[in-house]
Amino acid sequence: MVKKLKIGVLASGNGSNLQAIIDRILRGDLPAEVVCVITNRSDAFALERANNHGITAFYLNHRDFSGRAAYDAALVAALKGEGVELVVLAGFMRIITRVFLDAFPQAVMNIHPALLPSFPGLHAQQQALDYGAKVTGCTVHFVDEGTDTGPIIAQAAIPILPDDTVETLSQRIHLQEHLLYPEAVKLYAEGRLRVEGRRVVVSGIHTSPQSSLLNPSA
Amino acid sequence: MVKKLKIGVLASGNGSNLQAIIDRILRGDLPAEVVCVITNRSDAFALERANNHGITAFYLNHRDFSGRAAYDAALVAALKGEGVELVVLAGFMRIITRVFLDAFPQAVMNIHPALLPSFPGLHAQQQALDYGAKVTGCTVHFVDEGTDTGPIIAQAAIPILPDDTVETLSQRIHLQEHLLYPEAVKLYAEGRLRVEGRRVVVSGIHTSPQSSLLNPSA
Repeated sequence: MVKKLKIGVLASGNGSNLQAIIDRILRGDLPAEVVCVITNRSDAFALERANNHGITAFYLNHRDFSGRAAYDAALVAALKGEGVELVVLAGFMRIITRVFLDAFPQAVMNIHPALLPSFPGLHAQQQALDYGAKVTGCTVHFVDEGTDTGPIIAQAAIPILPDDTVETLSQRIHLQEHLLYPEAVKLYAEGRLRVEGRRVVVSGIHTSPQSSLLNPSA
Repeated sequence: MVKKLKIGVLASGNGSNLQAIIDRILRGDLPAEVVCVITNRSDAFALERANNHGITAFYLNHRDFSGRAAYDAALVAALKGEGVELVVLAGFMRIITRVFLDAFPQAVMNIHPALLPSFPGLHAQQQALDYGAKVTGCTVHFVDEGTDTGPIIAQAAIPILPDDTVETLSQRIHLQEHLLYPEAVKLYAEGRLRVEGRRVVVSGIHTSPQSSLLNPSA
C-alpha cells in the first residue's frame, strides 16, 4: 500500500481548490490525506468544507499575534502537530515568512491565476485584461520569499475571450485550477518533483508534443 | 472582388514567417499581396524566397546610413514607393524608430517567441527555459517604441517539454508562428482589428470557450 502524503491547507476564503483536492483524493486518484485546514478568517467557507469531510480545522487570527513571524510560528506548530508534510496554500491572503519556509523547505505550494512570470501579485485577471493579453492561465509553484516567484511546478494556458470580464475570466481560470492543483499535488505525493535551481524537474512525465492554437480561432 | 492588402516584409535572415504568409496567400486564404521584401543583410535567405515568388526585393545596408532615423527614412521611402499598407517584421533584427512608426501608424506588426509580457527581448526561448516555465508561446503584436510592448493581436500557448532545449522549443514555437502570423495578418487585411488603448479588439471572432490543460499531462 502506498504511504499517504499528509497535507495541510491554508485558506482565507471559499476554499474551492481545497475542495478540488479533497475530491481528487476521494476519487482514489491522489495518494494523500488532508489532515488539517487552517484559516485566518473565522468566516472562511473553507472551514465548513473541512468540517463536511471530518477534517481537523483551525481558525487562527493573525491579529492575536505580535507580528508575522509569531503568527507563522504558530501556524508551523499547528501544522507540525498534525504531522503535515506538504503545505498547500488555497487562497491564503497572507505573506509567508522565512520562519514558515524554513520549517517546510520546498514543501509549500501555491496557485496563481496567471501564467507566471506574467501578472504576478494581486488582481492577476484584471492585469491580464488591462494589458490586452489574448492568453493567460494559472501556475502552481513552490513558494519562496518573493511574490509569486518560486519554482514552477505546472502551468495551464487559458484563452482570453473577446467579451471576457474579470468575473468570466476568473471562472474559467478556476476550472483549470481545480484540475491543475490536484495534479501538481499528486506529482509531489508520488515523489516525482525535484527542484534544480529555478526548474522543477518532473520524473516519469509523458507529455505529447502537441500544442494548441488558442487565439484567434475564426 | 476583395481589395488586396499590400504588405511589405522586413527580414534579416531565413524569413520562414515570410514564407508562411506567402503560402497562405497562395492558398487563396489571405486577401493580401507581398509587394516587397527588404533585408538589412545581403545574405538573408528571405531575399531568395522573395525572388522565388517574383516579389520585389531590396537589400538596404544600415551601415550605408548616418543613423537609425536616416535608415528608417530610406526604408519608409522604399516601402511607400511600393504602395505598402502594412509592414510585417519577420525576424528583422533592427530597432524601429519613431520615424518609421509615424509613417505607418498602427500598421507595423511583429511576432515574438514568447507569451508577452513574459520574456521580452532577445533569447526569449532561453529565458523561458532558464525561468523554469512550463508553458510559453508566441505573440503577434503591433510595434510601438518599446521592446515587445505593443498592443497584442494574437497569442498561442506552447508547452515546454521535460527534455526541451532551445533548439527543440524554438522549432515547436516556429510551427505555431507559421500559423499565428498569417492569421493575424488576415485579421488585419479583413479590417477586423481595432486598437483601443492597450487592447486590440477583434471583430467577428468566434472563439469557443475551451481551454486546455497543457501541463502536466500524465
